[in-house]
Amino acid sequence: MTKDKKWTTRLEVEELIYDYAAAIDDDRLEEWPEFFTDECEYKIIPRENFDNEMPACIIYCNNKRMLMDRITALRKANIFEEHYSRHILSGVRIIDETNDVIHAECSYLVLQTRTDGETKIYNAGKMVDEIVRVDGALRFRSKSCIFDTHMINTLMVTPI
Amino acid sequence: MTKDKKWTTRLEVEELIYDYAAAIDDDRLEEWPEFFTDECEYKIIPRENFDNEMPACIIYCNNKRMLMDRITALRKANIFEEHYSRHILSGVRIIDETNDVIHAECSYLVLQTRTDGETKIYNAGKMVDEIVRVDGALRFRSKSCIFDTHMINTLMVTPI
Amino acid sequence: MTKDKKWTTRLEVEELIYDYAAAIDDDRLEEWPEFFTDECEYKIIPRENFDNEMPACIIYCNNKRMLMDRITALRKANIFEEHYSRHILSGVRIIDETNDVIHAECSYLVLQTRTDGETKIYNAGKMVDEIVRVDGALRFRSKSCIFDTHMINTLMVTPI
Repeated sequence: MTKDKKWTTRLEVEELIYDYAAAIDDDRLEEWPEFFTDECEYKIIPRENFDNEMPACIIYCNNKRMLMDRITALRKANIFEEHYSRHILSGVRIIDETNDVIHAECSYLVLQTRTDGETKIYNAGKMVDEIVRVDGALRFRSKSCIFDTHMINTLMVTPI
Repeated sequence: MTKDKKWTTRLEVEELIYDYAAAIDDDRLEEWPEFFTDECEYKIIPRENFDNEMPACIIYCNNKRMLMDRITALRKANIFEEHYSRHILSGVRIIDETNDVIHAECSYLVLQTRTDGETKIYNAGKMVDEIVRVDGALRFRSKSCIFDTHMINTLMVTPI
Repeated sequence: MTKDKKWTTRLEVEELIYDYAAAIDDDRLEEWPEFFTDECEYKIIPRENFDNEMPACIIYCNNKRMLMDRITALRKANIFEEHYSRHILSGVRIIDETNDVIHAECSYLVLQTRTDGETKIYNAGKMVDEIVRVDGALRFRSKSCIFDTHMINTLMVTPI
């Protein structure tokens, strides 16, 4: 991979990840599953489990319909305190690109502001992504949110 | 807009926004109004008001002289606890570029460190910007800081 | 420096800084000294001292062997509470590039998650770097972490 190609890939991956975060933070959650391929994997897993190759996740979806289902549940069924989400993303890195799959990582901090109006740290960790091109646009084939914050002080409803 | 043009625009807008934040965080506040056009709009508005198209802001300036006036007030008149500001910016996105106006957005987290030495979350939200080129350099024609944090625990003196 | 050259330099410096942070956050600390030149300077200094040209630092190393020594101490000798580090970096700016030395700055927020599982703000400030090219790769000749957070609530063991 030449340097120029690498920069273009990073700029394009950054755009995907930034658009993804904005869809969540702007509460355009119905758009969230569209960032993934039809067959995909989305999981939120404690760093301790990930490091020890223990598979237990707190959220696991393995296709786009499951992602859509989560949003339907959030809109219609889940009971949770109203809040704003805010993603702060840092350090998007292209780990490699082989056979049309881009492996990328970044650090994240998700803030939440609830009805008391204070903004607090909700969850921080690392996103590990496998990204492919579908009809010219980048999509997540796999996204793992590996979180440092193993004390989560509410039901996790809104996606990371 | 071609992809290459889009990347160049984003890199250039990022530079503007990063320089803007550094001027505030480095306490070079006299430079802050220079990031705007002469006729400009700068506002800090609660997300709830923005979402409901209610116009009330906590800060509203509609030209560069008002921005300069705020800094004069901060240096000479306002009474407030000494603090350091630190902007953490994330996800700069070019929404569109038409008729020489760039619409850009990013998420922000502003930290404050006061005399007790602890760094705390002060304000988080989204910047929505209209950017134009003046004598070859990018300038804000409009900047809206739409904040999630509706509990602000002191007089807001330093710009966001 | 042309604009294109400037963007390429920024993308390359961002890659260096993001890889640096990931090595720390992934606990690949043995790789940390390799981001520096053999003769180098690494310091962590309170913003107040830096602003007043007072030299006292809380950490000061002036060659790569001292950096390696810190990691050996961390792995074998220091007593400290187990924790995860997470760097959130923002606003990488190329200040100038002269005689093959790149001067760059960025803001940082370092989060820590300890055994209670809560993620907290550990340290925030600005990195001021001098970067040179060694065998085609960028390396830090000097890195100053100038911190806002003058209340540090534990022994500083893991590098910033």
